[in-house]
Amino acid sequence: MSGGPEDRLAALGLALPEVPTPAAAYQPWARSGDLVLTAGQLPVVDGALPCTGRLGAELQTAQGAQQARTAALNVLAVAAAAAGGLDRVRVVKLTVFVASAEGFHEQHLVANGASELIGEVLGTAGVHARSAVGVASLPLGAPVEVEAVLEVSSG
Amino acid sequence: MSGGPEDRLAALGLALPEVPTPAAAYQPWARSGDLVLTAGQLPVVDGALPCTGRLGAELQTAQGAQQARTAALNVLAVAAAAAGGLDRVRVVKLTVFVASAEGFHEQHLVANGASELIGEVLGTAGVHARSAVGVASLPLGAPVEVEAVLEVSSG
Amino acid sequence: MSGGPEDRLAALGLALPEVPTPAAAYQPWARSGDLVLTAGQLPVVDGALPCTGRLGAELQTAQGAQQARTAALNVLAVAAAAAGGLDRVRVVKLTVFVASAEGFHEQHLVANGASELIGEVLGTAGVHARSAVGVASLPLGAPVEVEAVLEVSSG
Repeated sequence: MSGGPEDRLAALGLALPEVPTPAAAYQPWARSGDLVLTAGQLPVVDGALPCTGRLGAELQTAQGAQQARTAALNVLAVAAAAAGGLDRVRVVKLTVFVASAEGFHEQHLVANGASELIGEVLGTAGVHARSAVGVASLPLGAPVEVEAVLEVSSG
Repeated sequence: MSGGPEDRLAALGLALPEVPTPAAAYQPWARSGDLVLTAGQLPVVDGALPCTGRLGAELQTAQGAQQARTAALNVLAVAAAAAGGLDRVRVVKLTVFVASAEGFHEQHLVANGASELIGEVLGTAGVHARSAVGVASLPLGAPVEVEAVLEVSSG
Repeated sequence: MSGGPEDRLAALGLALPEVPTPAAAYQPWARSGDLVLTAGQLPVVDGALPCTGRLGAELQTAQGAQQARTAALNVLAVAAAAAGGLDRVRVVKLTVFVASAEGFHEQHLVANGASELIGEVLGTAGVHARSAVGVASLPLGAPVEVEAVLEVSSG
């Protein structure tokens, strides 16, 4: 890939959103040494959820993957703010919580929406470990929540 | 805020409990460098759960927030033991698992019970990132489980 | 305990499997400094799940604990690959996600299947903190998913 992560975002027709305001009494990220732990990010766009519901009930896998991609864009916004630019950050781990109805077992395919965006934008700095699990429900009825462990350049 | 975290705990009418005995084959915390990872803490008081059940079914949001506050007090007990005193610890991240019936979407408000206690007691050392998710069920029927990533002073 | 972790594995009649291929767009582990974060490991054996279903419905606690033990063996395979040998790794934290039907509250006993294997194989290097939670469902219908935070020797 040529150019930096911001160039690749633009080539995807995307731009970093504002860092979402936490829905409650906490901060979007916290740092310890070179590690940054993000708050769980919902797929909010301009402060609202484009859709709500559970996978396997109100939403299909492809829709869930799109929502995971949106949540991952918010993770990138947090990462850029925490690190002082996307070129100063690695994604080490993602945990993707997927609101799931009984019998839905494609959490890994939903989570790919997040993993693939991170890879497209960060390249080798986006190569991460991941867990994907199906939860009963999420804040505000969100279909997915994505949190990340990041490594930032100390220079 | 004046005084140290123990003073603030006392002003809240609280005292650190004993570190809860793990319910199974593990330890209350483990350290790597300056990071301490706690085990998930249930809202046990004197070794028992004051209430059980799911949010959105047997329990209401305000009750859940109180239980999250209790679990966070146990997190502080673990933190004090791990760090050698509450004045030697920062809370970097909380993950709050909330036992949730279908259709309950106020996990973030439940989790505020934990976040607010941490802030009241630790002040700026309690400014943390957070994830809150709604799970199907928790050990022993607990309504909430809270785990933390801590940074301890190496001095 | 005498001998190294590989000796103890053999004494248990076990051998490290191949590192399971991730089910999707991510890697089995990622490292930052001396920390290694693993991807969530399912109880796959030779690339397939021996059983599927939820605890409290299709599966009983003892079966779930056996599946957690299998998933933990996969965690050990990842750990050995990441660290260059099991004698160079500590397990700091396990998170055990247990697919749970309503009313099932023995996630901690299921998770013991993972914790006990880690302790048997790694000894004091396997003393870890842990969270166990009951989730709605897991990828591919797996009954458990186990992820780990590891510390590897930097030498």
